[in-house]
Amino acid sequence: MAEKLVLNEDRFFDADPRVRKLARELYNDIKDLPIVSPHGHVDPKLFAKNEPFPDPTELILIPDHYVFRMLYSQSIRLESVGIPPLDGAAVETDHRKIWQIFGDNYYLFAGTPTGAWLNHEFSKVFGIKEKLTAESAMRIYDQINDRLKTAEFRPRAMFDKFRIEVLTTTDGATDSLKYHQQIRDSGWIGKIIPCFRPDAVINFATIGWKNEIAKLGQLSGINVDSYPNFIKALENRREFFKNMGAVSTDQGVESSYAHQLSENDADKLFQRALKTKATKADADQFIAHMLMEMARMSIEDGLVMQIHPGSFRNHNQMIFEKFGPDKGCDIPVQTEFTRNLRELLNKYGNDSRLTLVVFTLDESTYSRELAPLAGHYPAMRLGPPWWFHDSIEGMARFRQSVTETAGIYNTVGFNDDTRALPSIPARHDLSRRMDSNFLAGLVARHIIDMEDARKMSRALAYDLVKQAYKL
Amino acid sequence: MAEKLVLNEDRFFDADPRVRKLARELYNDIKDLPIVSPHGHVDPKLFAKNEPFPDPTELILIPDHYVFRMLYSQSIRLESVGIPPLDGAAVETDHRKIWQIFGDNYYLFAGTPTGAWLNHEFSKVFGIKEKLTAESAMRIYDQINDRLKTAEFRPRAMFDKFRIEVLTTTDGATDSLKYHQQIRDSGWIGKIIPCFRPDAVINFATIGWKNEIAKLGQLSGINVDSYPNFIKALENRREFFKNMGAVSTDQGVESSYAHQLSENDADKLFQRALKTKATKADADQFIAHMLMEMARMSIEDGLVMQIHPGSFRNHNQMIFEKFGPDKGCDIPVQTEFTRNLRELLNKYGNDSRLTLVVFTLDESTYSRELAPLAGHYPAMRLGPPWWFHDSIEGMARFRQSVTETAGIYNTVGFNDDTRALPSIPARHDLSRRMDSNFLAGLVARHIIDMEDARKMSRALAYDLVKQAYKL
Amino acid sequence: MAEKLVLNEDRFFDADPRVRKLARELYNDIKDLPIVSPHGHVDPKLFAKNEPFPDPTELILIPDHYVFRMLYSQSIRLESVGIPPLDGAAVETDHRKIWQIFGDNYYLFAGTPTGAWLNHEFSKVFGIKEKLTAESAMRIYDQINDRLKTAEFRPRAMFDKFRIEVLTTTDGATDSLKYHQQIRDSGWIGKIIPCFRPDAVINFATIGWKNEIAKLGQLSGINVDSYPNFIKALENRREFFKNMGAVSTDQGVESSYAHQLSENDADKLFQRALKTKATKADADQFIAHMLMEMARMSIEDGLVMQIHPGSFRNHNQMIFEKFGPDKGCDIPVQTEFTRNLRELLNKYGNDSRLTLVVFTLDESTYSRELAPLAGHYPAMRLGPPWWFHDSIEGMARFRQSVTETAGIYNTVGFNDDTRALPSIPARHDLSRRMDSNFLAGLVARHIIDMEDARKMSRALAYDLVKQAYKL
Repeated sequence: MAEKLVLNEDRFFDADPRVRKLARELYNDIKDLPIVSPHGHVDPKLFAKNEPFPDPTELILIPDHYVFRMLYSQSIRLESVGIPPLDGAAVETDHRKIWQIFGDNYYLFAGTPTGAWLNHEFSKVFGIKEKLTAESAMRIYDQINDRLKTAEFRPRAMFDKFRIEVLTTTDGATDSLKYHQQIRDSGWIGKIIPCFRPDAVINFATIGWKNEIAKLGQLSGINVDSYPNFIKALENRREFFKNMGAVSTDQGVESSYAHQLSENDADKLFQRALKTKATKADADQFIAHMLMEMARMSIEDGLVMQIHPGSFRNHNQMIFEKFGPDKGCDIPVQTEFTRNLRELLNKYGNDSRLTLVVFTLDESTYSRELAPLAGHYPAMRLGPPWWFHDSIEGMARFRQSVTETAGIYNTVGFNDDTRALPSIPARHDLSRRMDSNFLAGLVARHIIDMEDARKMSRALAYDLVKQAYKL
Repeated sequence: MAEKLVLNEDRFFDADPRVRKLARELYNDIKDLPIVSPHGHVDPKLFAKNEPFPDPTELILIPDHYVFRMLYSQSIRLESVGIPPLDGAAVETDHRKIWQIFGDNYYLFAGTPTGAWLNHEFSKVFGIKEKLTAESAMRIYDQINDRLKTAEFRPRAMFDKFRIEVLTTTDGATDSLKYHQQIRDSGWIGKIIPCFRPDAVINFATIGWKNEIAKLGQLSGINVDSYPNFIKALENRREFFKNMGAVSTDQGVESSYAHQLSENDADKLFQRALKTKATKADADQFIAHMLMEMARMSIEDGLVMQIHPGSFRNHNQMIFEKFGPDKGCDIPVQTEFTRNLRELLNKYGNDSRLTLVVFTLDESTYSRELAPLAGHYPAMRLGPPWWFHDSIEGMARFRQSVTETAGIYNTVGFNDDTRALPSIPARHDLSRRMDSNFLAGLVARHIIDMEDARKMSRALAYDLVKQAYKL
Repeated sequence: MAEKLVLNEDRFFDADPRVRKLARELYNDIKDLPIVSPHGHVDPKLFAKNEPFPDPTELILIPDHYVFRMLYSQSIRLESVGIPPLDGAAVETDHRKIWQIFGDNYYLFAGTPTGAWLNHEFSKVFGIKEKLTAESAMRIYDQINDRLKTAEFRPRAMFDKFRIEVLTTTDGATDSLKYHQQIRDSGWIGKIIPCFRPDAVINFATIGWKNEIAKLGQLSGINVDSYPNFIKALENRREFFKNMGAVSTDQGVESSYAHQLSENDADKLFQRALKTKATKADADQFIAHMLMEMARMSIEDGLVMQIHPGSFRNHNQMIFEKFGPDKGCDIPVQTEFTRNLRELLNKYGNDSRLTLVVFTLDESTYSRELAPLAGHYPAMRLGPPWWFHDSIEGMARFRQSVTETAGIYNTVGFNDDTRALPSIPARHDLSRRMDSNFLAGLVARHIIDMEDARKMSRALAYDLVKQAYKL
């Protein structure tokens, strides 16, 4: 009755045997390179505590909004798969029962990147030999559960086993980085570095913004009662992050619009916010200004600047109010870069001390705006397509759309951007396969030769990310 | 001299023999499934009267704006191919002469979906064995003409021969559905059901809107002198359509913007319209409000809600004034869903009693907005790419862009959306071939296996449409 | 140590042997057709003077912003590769040294169209047998340099060798066309024709607009002190260009918005501009109006009307101020056609005397707006994707996106749009290969047959461009 789970050695490569042969050859050269993960959301506490993961549902399903949003889209209530309402209302706590629901509905993921990652994870990380179905669900639960109790499935052991050279977390400006400190103090040599993400102190509209500002004051020792002091406090925190190993910052913004205000005007907005009188327009103006300031600071302290524009956060108000953020309800919106980034690029884009890595969810901008901008400005680099598009077809479309204009050397390799530790090798393996296949296609069509392809393949898998993020 | 018309058994499949073999295998399993056509524009009168089609030109060319718009784009006047001016001015009436023009210019359709459908229609429906050219035109006219005189080419016979399980027409709110009633009364068992399309009573800017409102009053027995009565009358008509077998509604809107007004504000707009004082902005506001109301009604009466946004109707004013609507002059405009549908989805999108099927002509929204929305909200499903994109490459792009984020189970199979009865099998056959080929590509790249593919293939060809439309 | 430069006979064709075989067959039939180049930027002075090109750096690198923008994006200063600052500041003058930088960084172009063209140029035009690398750079410089001294590498000899049937230059409204006259007077029979590009006299925001207007007055003999006289002067210059062989006009506009003003309102704007009081909004309004006027004039004098919308010119202000325009800093912006072109198409689009060729850099408009418009209006034709997208993948995406809706007969073949004479055969060869491969793919999937494909292939390579441009 059980259906076998088999990962074909040539998975994700073109069916054509000529392309496939070349892709395999390129992939074999790079598949064992260490993993460099310069942007993601794994919780550093995992490595600080290094405790066993409690069970398969807690590890794989509950923290992964890719998984439960698909279940939700088919009318499966979030409470029934263990997502806790904020008000403490009832939630399913029987994790075996939740896993059974997952098994019953696993067919929904056929042809999705989530399906591809999970199959890799089940097979390569946990040694599962059958497909997840309604029938096999409990057997697979037990097998993973057993393994999670063993030493080799603790977080640090996984990190080592996956051969991760460096893993970057994403941390708020007011994060104490105590887990990063504990990791350092522990003597474990795994390189886990923070990334400075100041959205919650920059965006007046953040719930609890004033508390965040208060915390920023405490941590920096600077009384954040004015815009100049806010800047000083931010610079102080950047310095602290840098000392803790950070090489980059990140900003999630709805629009990429950047526009410098006078210090006086910036302070007016800031004072309004302190008095809880700032409007949405005030908040947007301040964000636009802070993109300029963050670029200036990056030129001064050398941190790589990343921006993730174009996501409408918490689109589903009911889910947001009931369950909080990051529940699969962030929906992309159309994004503009040519006009919006112009002021920033005019002021800082010709300066090679800045590395500005731009991500997007809007594929219509790949060939129209992003590749031409990155193919011109020395400071600008293209992050891989982020979020929904770190997928098989998404990667193919990205390479096909940007390479001709930007080349590969104005891109920065792969970002796994994940919360899910065990999915990291799956994602990097997918990326390496897709890039190998893309280059193999160019070789098969005699656009490049294998000599070019080998250099480009290594650059995409390893060199570019290390160079761009100064690792 | 004659060139043979041959439909290759492997048409539309990838050239690669591995993919092709898998595609053929998948296609063979589903090719004979009954046709379910949940959205289209075939005239129900055809089946009520069941009279022979007059001639090939009348059947194939004159009603099909895909055909004559291409001829028009090459400077062939509409009058010369039998499209009657509204003012009764001269029009070519020699249908053999028109067919000759069609033959002379048939090369224009090489590589277009219209060409693919027509070739299928000629070959499989009418048994034509040579390509349509200037030289063969009259022979082919005669052959089709002869067949149209026989019993097996009457509308009901075609319906049965095509193995159509259900065919949905599109009908205005003020349509009496008398032809649907005649079909029922005739004892013929072919299932032809209406779909409730209230655009002409909702959009104040419709030519003849007040007449439509008057008709709505007569048919519903409700004096439509106020917004509350308008709503009652609409509900009355929905009930009538439902009793006549309808399972769905449809709205063609320029923008998908939905926004609830107070009853009082809605009535103000409605009163202005009754006084012929409504502006374009008033009309747009009312449409936005009515999207909310139609969703509410769908939750109450269970009719599936369809929306077709993003078409600029009657772009060519001269053609519209001279020949009327639906003359190949509807041109897509950029469309936005994330912000525009938010209010509707926030109010009704978490409610599984609603099925909202969204269509689009704007491919840039596939991966950016539509797939993420459908991949989250329980109520939302993606209609197939509509109109220009129900085509070979268009279908491939749709599947490649939406499947990874929405999966296939948040889509609703195929809609042929046609006015042309004899093209129905051609369109469904094309869709089945393209979906088989898409899935074969996933199997060949080891993303899914044949077991998955068989289930998905059947879902796309038959199960999903029946479930989504509650058929 | 040297790596061989080999141009595979099957380059750019699909890897699949079935498609490749068909593509080769189609390509072989058209590869030797004469080159018709209806839009480009080669300097007519080259042919008037017919002097030897000074050296490889001067010929290949310095005039080509595709080449040096990629170097610049990797922090190589423009002065260091010979681009002269406007203020006469220091610039590298050792052209061997610059070529060495080019060789050191040539790997950046792997997988880009520039790389493909340059390899073709090196191999087929200059007979180079090794890849350009840091190591081979000086040898290749010497070889090309030697050849440039010979008679067969003078401009006219290249023109003849490339079998160019007609080459169109792009010339301002105030250009005297003296080089075109010199070519005529020389007795050489190469057909070099001008194209009328009036941007600098139409756009008030052009630096030096008033000087341009003064020049326009001198050349036309009409005192351009009012809008009516401006129109007369333009008509006069169009007549002059036509007498000098021109068959077309061209306009580069940020938006495609067209809107007719009254003569009175147009004159008000013009008077404000003469007083240097026109705003950006005034300039945009006047451009919108002049699109209407240029269409009217085209109907009267028969010149084909081209528009190139959607490029944000000179995005990098520092580069623009320091080095001037056309330095690789034009960045595309989102473009709209359905609403923007409506007034123009409603007034003139049904008139077959007008041929309006529309180009774009915004691929999201291909299937959504451009193909539907061209597939309906008799006057409208689609130019090939322009600029960044005259590339391998870009061509494939264009054909895949527009052919199904517009067919091929509403397109106008290929435009090389180049400044670089020796790249012309490379570009046309690439286009012919890509179109052959596209059609081969349709044949392999049995969408068209080889009989269709052969006609279409010839149309795309030669017939369509001659018909559309009335050559």
